[in-house]
Parts: sequence; C-alpha cells; structure tokens
Amino acid sequence: MQSLPFYPQGFRSCAKSVGIRDTTLDFTVIASDVPAAAAAMFTQSRFCGPAITVGREHVANGQLQAFVINSKNANVATGEQGLANIREVARRVAEELHIAAEDILPSSTGVIGWQLPMENLRAGIAGIAAEMRPGRLHVSAHAIMTTDTRPKMRARRIGDAVLVGMCKGVGMIEPNMATMLAYFVTDARIAQDYLKQCLQEVVNLTFNMISVDTDTSTSDTVAIMANGLAGDVPLADFRQVLLEMATDLARDLASDGEGATKLLEVTVSQAASFEQAKTVAKSIVNSPLVKTAIFGTDPNWGRVAMAIGKCHQYTDILPENVSISFGDLLVYQGQPLGQENLPQLEAYLHNTEVAIYVSLGTGEARATVWGCDLSYEYVKINGEYTT
Amino acid sequence: MQSLPFYPQGFRSCAKSVGIRDTTLDFTVIASDVPAAAAAMFTQSRFCGPAITVGREHVANGQLQAFVINSKNANVATGEQGLANIREVARRVAEELHIAAEDILPSSTGVIGWQLPMENLRAGIAGIAAEMRPGRLHVSAHAIMTTDTRPKMRARRIGDAVLVGMCKGVGMIEPNMATMLAYFVTDARIAQDYLKQCLQEVVNLTFNMISVDTDTSTSDTVAIMANGLAGDVPLADFRQVLLEMATDLARDLASDGEGATKLLEVTVSQAASFEQAKTVAKSIVNSPLVKTAIFGTDPNWGRVAMAIGKCHQYTDILPENVSISFGDLLVYQGQPLGQENLPQLEAYLHNTEVAIYVSLGTGEARATVWGCDLSYEYVKINGEYTT
Repeated sequence: MQSLPFYPQGFRSCAKSVGIRDTTLDFTVIASDVPAAAAAMFTQSRFCGPAITVGREHVANGQLQAFVINSKNANVATGEQGLANIREVARRVAEELHIAAEDILPSSTGVIGWQLPMENLRAGIAGIAAEMRPGRLHVSAHAIMTTDTRPKMRARRIGDAVLVGMCKGVGMIEPNMATMLAYFVTDARIAQDYLKQCLQEVVNLTFNMISVDTDTSTSDTVAIMANGLAGDVPLADFRQVLLEMATDLARDLASDGEGATKLLEVTVSQAASFEQAKTVAKSIVNSPLVKTAIFGTDPNWGRVAMAIGKCHQYTDILPENVSISFGDLLVYQGQPLGQENLPQLEAYLHNTEVAIYVSLGTGEARATVWGCDLSYEYVKINGEYTT
Repeated sequence: MQSLPFYPQGFRSCAKSVGIRDTTLDFTVIASDVPAAAAAMFTQSRFCGPAITVGREHVANGQLQAFVINSKNANVATGEQGLANIREVARRVAEELHIAAEDILPSSTGVIGWQLPMENLRAGIAGIAAEMRPGRLHVSAHAIMTTDTRPKMRARRIGDAVLVGMCKGVGMIEPNMATMLAYFVTDARIAQDYLKQCLQEVVNLTFNMISVDTDTSTSDTVAIMANGLAGDVPLADFRQVLLEMATDLARDLASDGEGATKLLEVTVSQAASFEQAKTVAKSIVNSPLVKTAIFGTDPNWGRVAMAIGKCHQYTDILPENVSISFGDLLVYQGQPLGQENLPQLEAYLHNTEVAIYVSLGTGEARATVWGCDLSYEYVKINGEYTT
C-alpha cells in the first residue's frame, strides 16, 4: 500500500474493517489532536442521508475535530432509525477520543436503503483511541472506496504546512453543490471564513465540473480541516495548492469512473457566460452517444454537434459560428471539414485521454469539465451491484 | 413484410433504396392526392438539420401534400450545402408528382455531419411518380428505420375515416418539443387549427414523455396530414384515437430503444404539479443506475430514491412523505420496508415490462413516462455506429 511522502502535523487516523458487508476496509476515523477550523459542502439531494444532516449541523460553527467515514452502506432512505444510528456512531467515537460529538463530521457511502449493522459498528468503535496513529492517512483513502479501482490522494507542501487530500467516487457522480466524498486536512492556520469561501470557489471549478453518469449521490461531501499547528501560510498559495490538488483529484475521479477506459476533458470557450460554457460542456461530457462513441473509437464527431444542439435554451448558439476540435484536429467550423480526417480522428480516439474543444462564438467565457467514456463494464458493474 | 388492415383514402406512397449508404430501404415518399390540412412539431435542437428548417417553412400555412423522408444520413451540421441539397430533393419530388414544393415536408435521419449523396438521390427520384401506389404505407415504416429492430405502425378506424401512424427512433431519444420521426395520415376532414392544437396536446402526453438516453435528436419531427376525403368525424373521437395511437407508438419506441431488453414505465403521482411529476419521472427513467439495475435484475430500489432526490429544485419533496413501488410491491414508505421483499422484487424485475410507481406526497398531479433499460448492447451499437 503506497504511503504519502509527508503528513500534516497533529492528525491521527485509523482504518479498519468492522464487517459492514465483508472483511474489506470499511471504516475510518481521521482526527486532529486539537479542534480545527473547518468547512464542508454537501449534496443537494432531497433524499440526502442522515450523515449529511448531522454533518451540516456539526460544521455550522466552522469547527471540527474528526471525520468518521464508513463505506459499503450509504445509510440513506433509512428513516428515523437511520438518523439515530449515525448520531450514535458519532457519539461513540467522540467518547472514545474524548472530543465533542458536535466536532465530528460523519459520512456513509454504499448501498441505499439498508440500515447500518450497528452491532458491528459498536464492536469496531470500542477501544479505537488506541488504534489512532499519525502517518496513516493513506490507509483511510483505501477504506473510503466502494467500486473505486484505486485510492485517490495527494500531499503538497505550502511553506511549513502540509495539505493532504483524498476522495472516492466512481458512479452516481454528477455533483451539484458538492460531490461524492472528498477530505482535506492541513496543519496550516486558516481563518474559518476564508476556509469556507476558498473551499466553495475551488469545488465549483473542480468537483462540480465532473460527471460520470449524471446521477447525483445522496451522500456527496467535501470537507476540510485546518488545525493550525504549522502556523500561517500565504493565503494565495494555499488557495492555489488547494485548487491544483482538487483538480488532480477530480480528474482522478473521472478517469476512475465506473467502467471507464478513457478520461474525457471538454473545454467550451467563446461562450456568452461561464454558465453557458459549463452547461454545453456538461451536455457533451454526459451524452451517452458521445461517451459510447469514444469508448468504441468511433470518429462520429456529429454527436458532439448533437449534444451542443440539445442546449436549446441558448438561442444565441448558431451552428454557423460553432467550431469543434478533438485535440489539435479541427473537424467542424460552421460546416464539416470533410471525411478525409476521419482516420486521423479515429487514431486520436485511441488515446486514454481525449480532449474536446468547442468554440461557441457567443462571447468570451470558458469552462472545462471532466468525465469518462461509457463501456460494457459500467453496465456490468451497475447491473450486479447489490446482489 | 406485415401490411396494415386498412388504409386511408387518397394516399399513395413508395419506399425504395436510393443507395444512401447501402442497398437497404432508405427513401420514401408519402403523398396525398389532394392538398391536406397539416400540422407538425420539430426538435428544439440548436443544431437542427436543414430539413427541419424547410419543414417549418412549408407547414407554416397549415397545408401539406407529401412527406419525403430519407434514412441513413441526417444531413445535419452540413452548412449551406446541406440546406441547398434538401431544397433540391423537395423540388425534384414536387416536379415529379406535379405538386407544390412548398407542400412537401422533408425529413432526414441517420449519421450527422455527412453531405447527402445527391447523385444517388437524383437518380432515385427520377420517374418516381410511376412508383406511387395506395396500400403501401407499411413499406414506408420500414424505409424510415435506422437501428430500429422492427417497424412501428398502427391503423385505426374513426367512423368512415382511417388514421395511420408510423414512427422510428431508437437512440438519441429525449424529445423536448417533438420527437424522432413520426407520421400520421388520415382521410378524416379536420380543420387546420384543431389539427395543430390536437397534435400538440397529444405529443406532450406521449412522444414528449419518452426517453431512451437523454440525447435529443437534431432531426425530431412529428407530422400529420388530414386530406378530408372521408368527410367529418367527431373531433373528440379523433383526438382520443390519436392519443391512444401515439401512446402505443411511444411505448413501441421506448421498448425498442437501442439495446433495450425491457420497457420501463414510471408513474409519479401525488405531485405538486404535472411539471414536478414529469421531472421526477424523467429523472428516474433516465438514471443510468436505475436503468442498469433493471437490466441486471438487481433489486436495488435505493437508486429510485437517489433519482428522486437529485431533483433538488423541489424543496417540498420530503423523504418521509415519499413511497416507492415496483408493480404491486411496495418497497419504501417513508422508510425501507425491510430486506425480506428483495427476492420478490428481483423476481418482478425479470418481466419484460417494469412499472415503477412513486407517490411524492406534495399534491394531486401525476405523470407517466416511458423508457428502457441500459444494456451491453446499447454500448455496442453506439460504439460501432459509423465505422
């Protein structure tokens, strides 16, 4: 198991199997030695899980001390019992670690509609304080996985401080306000208000710009703790490193989308607004016909035109002003550029990263989004998930 | 080739191969002996084909005399040449049939971004008047197919009149205003204004309620001609028969969705508005995770909860007031109803028609939509389309 090159001061963690569905890693606690400035963003789902409800309450005052995360069971659509269960999980962990339950942000990810196996969780939490160790955050990145094929984590230095980020997510990925599960911990000292603003700005340019399958999870959470033990760092540096790390992690998520064989990056430029650029880019990256064509290396660029066209709310988009490129290869510029370049396009589609550039000719704004192709494996994974 | 039990008076047709891509049927003309009252609805795509542009012009006065349809090439994203080409097709057919070019509604369906093979079309149109025959509409239903596995057509009597409908469409199916290609011809006498209003009402309850893959075609067209040769019929009867026929054809489209193994019918009731009911129902029927679970007979009803939850614009939807059933089997009513019924749910999912009922508890409105499952075959068909 790959470890990280460095870790922030004052964070301990443990990751284990408590037997939620099997004996694989399914439970992790990441705790700061001292209360930390914190911020979080959550799913906008109307069917959000009770962990989201509790997390919203607990982060409201801008302070957290621990993330407690289980995989293999989302604890969603579980009624009042589900809410009582996750509150008990937070309370028990707090008692073990001698911290306030109100400083815990809980998350659950996995199958929807099943109650948590509380006996297993109670047994797993008992005595957990003795298992908390520094330098083990990389194991947590494994414990939060569901159908992920690999852990997704990064570590960066900012002056004397360290920022570590990790996330999971492979299907049910079209975040709206926040996305899947992503956690950042740093020993930099960052004011609560700035931390919150910075997280929102970064998430809107990164995790909110990816989509695997247009399905929005009931459990999406992005959270950050800054415990301040390394002191102050330049805020602009902090924001830039967080943005770069979140971009890397978002690309990791897209390229490990369920069944994905290719990372798809779509940039829409010369748009009337960021919103227009993002909407058109998402329409392309989410189109099943674009995704299957890229999976099959079918040089069917007309489907990109289709996906632009279905954004019919934008009456300023005129086909004669649009251009479409794959990598460096221009295929449409107000009219098709002939079938001679189809073999070249087909060859380009064999890359594991496919970049599509669209110029709308309606203004100056631009947006980049990330997604993946749609393969047999996506169908297989999701036709066989619970049983 | 299955024929229809009866045909409306005064309509002749021919269907042939003009060699657009191969030697299969790819071109059809359906013409009335006299000018007919007519109405049509078209795609809202910003990348709509030039046939749509010409069709909008020609039907504006409420009169048509012929439908001219080619498959295998959508003539979309083809610039000014594409527009000139489809105008020439209409002009040549009009000259052959001695009718006005302005009374022709053209349609093209197939691959996007390729120019029409005009030499082949010119040769195929020459002398076509001699090929026009009554009682051959069923052959046209074959000629308009692309990846359809079967023709979709119906015939019904309304008093002394006959209504025949046909449609095609298998992928790129999430119509917005109108949908894919669908044609109705009748010898009933119907006033232009009523015909237009009636078509809009019916389409909004039928073709606009289906989705195969969320992708909106650039060529969607629904059109009707009523030539009046059978005289007047009760308008309420006409509307009802048109509604039933359009419902049947819409279900045919959904169940023959690309790669579909199952028809999916989703009804959302006790909603705050028709719009809310339709939006939630579409969210369910379009969810790749719901569609793959149904393909794989995975009793993962939590994904329906997820798809309801992602309609986060409706803050009046509360999980505690929602119920979810598959057929007669209630699985969630404010809380999960236990895992005992999962084997029964799995057994139900082996049916070729799966009905999902959701009650939102926000009001009195309801809507029904149709779709299909997502299978390996969808990926295969669309990864190998043009090459």
